[in-house]
Amino acid sequence: MLGNVPQLSTPHTSPLLRFEQQLIARSADIEAWFRRQWLSTPPPFYASVDLRNAGFKLAPVDTNLFPGGFNNLAPSMEPLCIQAIQSAVERACPTCNGVLLVPENHTRNKFYLENVASLFELLREAGFHVRIGTLNPEVREATTLSLEISGRQLTLEPLVREGDKVRVGDFTPCLVLLNNDLSAGIPEMLQGISQTVSPPPAAGWHARLKTHHFGYYRDVATEFGKIAGIDPWWVDPRFRNCGQINFMKREGEECLVSNVELLLEDIREKYAEYGIHEEPFVIVKADAGTYGMGVMTVRSADDVREMNRKARTHMSSAKEGREVTGAILQEGVHTFETWGPDNHAAEPVVYMIDRFVVGGFYRVNEKRSNQENLNAPGMSFKPLPFENCCNHPDLSVAPDARPNQFYAYGVVARLALVAAAREIAGLG
Amino acid sequence: MLGNVPQLSTPHTSPLLRFEQQLIARSADIEAWFRRQWLSTPPPFYASVDLRNAGFKLAPVDTNLFPGGFNNLAPSMEPLCIQAIQSAVERACPTCNGVLLVPENHTRNKFYLENVASLFELLREAGFHVRIGTLNPEVREATTLSLEISGRQLTLEPLVREGDKVRVGDFTPCLVLLNNDLSAGIPEMLQGISQTVSPPPAAGWHARLKTHHFGYYRDVATEFGKIAGIDPWWVDPRFRNCGQINFMKREGEECLVSNVELLLEDIREKYAEYGIHEEPFVIVKADAGTYGMGVMTVRSADDVREMNRKARTHMSSAKEGREVTGAILQEGVHTFETWGPDNHAAEPVVYMIDRFVVGGFYRVNEKRSNQENLNAPGMSFKPLPFENCCNHPDLSVAPDARPNQFYAYGVVARLALVAAAREIAGLG
Repeated sequence: MLGNVPQLSTPHTSPLLRFEQQLIARSADIEAWFRRQWLSTPPPFYASVDLRNAGFKLAPVDTNLFPGGFNNLAPSMEPLCIQAIQSAVERACPTCNGVLLVPENHTRNKFYLENVASLFELLREAGFHVRIGTLNPEVREATTLSLEISGRQLTLEPLVREGDKVRVGDFTPCLVLLNNDLSAGIPEMLQGISQTVSPPPAAGWHARLKTHHFGYYRDVATEFGKIAGIDPWWVDPRFRNCGQINFMKREGEECLVSNVELLLEDIREKYAEYGIHEEPFVIVKADAGTYGMGVMTVRSADDVREMNRKARTHMSSAKEGREVTGAILQEGVHTFETWGPDNHAAEPVVYMIDRFVVGGFYRVNEKRSNQENLNAPGMSFKPLPFENCCNHPDLSVAPDARPNQFYAYGVVARLALVAAAREIAGLG
Repeated sequence: MLGNVPQLSTPHTSPLLRFEQQLIARSADIEAWFRRQWLSTPPPFYASVDLRNAGFKLAPVDTNLFPGGFNNLAPSMEPLCIQAIQSAVERACPTCNGVLLVPENHTRNKFYLENVASLFELLREAGFHVRIGTLNPEVREATTLSLEISGRQLTLEPLVREGDKVRVGDFTPCLVLLNNDLSAGIPEMLQGISQTVSPPPAAGWHARLKTHHFGYYRDVATEFGKIAGIDPWWVDPRFRNCGQINFMKREGEECLVSNVELLLEDIREKYAEYGIHEEPFVIVKADAGTYGMGVMTVRSADDVREMNRKARTHMSSAKEGREVTGAILQEGVHTFETWGPDNHAAEPVVYMIDRFVVGGFYRVNEKRSNQENLNAPGMSFKPLPFENCCNHPDLSVAPDARPNQFYAYGVVARLALVAAAREIAGLG
């Protein structure tokens, strides 16, 4: 059990309390609405969603279709993950008995390797033959790693293409499960294969745009607002975008400046409507990027104009050297959840498999403020597993009691999941 | 957590250890086999299975398609139950938003009422509108009970038939969930209604025969034996039956005597094969009965002949006055699991919703021996919730370690679930 869970440290809790009250009062209708969504648009195999909780607003800021961090979930969530994996595999490939897990290439990230080991175990415990096939050209034969953190063993095998199938060794499964976000494009190895690949390679970060996702999300939030009887803004971070940006060459700067101004004005209006006396801010990030690189907090148009050279270089350095060409300007959502005696900012990350919420954790960052992106690489965040699974409200306690707060996380995360499902369906 | 879990107190553990080793070694193939079963024969909405663990044998002795006792599961199983209910309802009725729960009529059994309250809460937390419609003619209007044990409130409403639908008040749901085993037949109220009724009324105890179930189970165990590489006898209690028995009139006694002798001989042979030095015994029970009434332990043909008047009356008194007309003679499986300092006999009861194992408990009976039926009515058994959910093996510990013992329970219980699925499909 956690002795010390994040606390909301804001006076602006009344809209959220009303939000939580609405979620509980209408939970059967809300769940029915979700069920209708899944009947018309199947959920992705899995996803994780970063949320920010400002007290007056609870919104997703990032949706990952190739989630890492399964090692950060509480061990008590394991049975739930297993059950959900059984549903997810059945949906992807009803007669499937074997799963080939394709991870990211970075075999030296000890945190990521723990995630791969956890996913591997979950799939095996769910009753499937599982092997790990890597795209990493450095892995030329089956290689067993001893993991530094847990001491677990992990065997990576080189992925082999044969005809219209991929295999490792003599193992040619019917399902290829991607845990690689394909930032660099769809590798030849995976192009045109006859096996089911889930999530679809077309949903990789080589093609995904945050603005597409949040465009779908905006519609989802609007529909959900009617069902839940709430202002969609409570769950929806507004955004604008600029298509052609080169930070080094200062191209597109005027687009950024004018859109930041418009967005800040928008936020100010909503803050005024609810009597919120916080300073609005905008997050500028690569429309196509991953991993929290190239993320900047701006509070005024001047912040954009005065961006110094170092910040520019940072903004240009998205994952795998990809040049930033488009940017999303997203309404900044304060994180008013803090953890520990030093009040470190904490943001919830919710995990879903198939249509089920299966747990999550708080990302606690000791070095970042509540107006910054907390998902910085490496060791600078600390995972704090949720003690609740978020899949149901507790009608016997107050709307803002912990189990119901977790349920609210689960609802908002699933809104992002609905948006992701539509986004994937839209890929054709 | 449980400080004191039941222990196996038998020297005959080597076949079971081999069984558990096989389950783990072949778990992916076993799970694949289960998945194939569900693709061809859908699982019942829910079920509970009573198991007996003799160390040399782990077998189901009773399969309940209208399970009570959901209140006996550990609170930590709640999220798992909720996820499984979402799958079960989706399977029964994909667009369902409302569930009408129809409980047993005995509104004075405080333990059963706790079960109804737990089921109600699980359904509601799974995101459905739920109300309870009773067939009990004494309930003429909505009646709220305060439950003696938990203090929870439970509202029972009289079930109303209107055209080809049933409703309570203004609530006409698409799914009627039976938690009433219909021992007395299918009530007119439920005949020919257009709503989905699950489990199907034809699977009520008015029509079910234990010999049918265990006939299906025998086939299932044989098929499973091939997949798991085990002697099916390890999981299969042999049985014989006598069709026309009237205990009071001593009709059919010779059938009983000869079949008891044949069955005991059968068991002696298997005991000799495995070097088991226990006394074989046979359980005689009503083929159509419920609730542990009319259950007798016999160790010889003479036990049948010498049955005294009191035992005869007991055997004739199955639930709701139904006369015993057929009997099943089932291989007795010793319960070598004992609990507490006084070594009370304990038998595992495993709960399943849809195709998922969602937990269970030990039925600990302080008054019965390890060769008797432990499911006596009322207060004489003590439920001890499983701390594990049984849905997956733990490959990192010994085959007979607790998590794997629970997995073995879950596998054998699901064999009975496959048999129940075929039994229901066979009803046409």
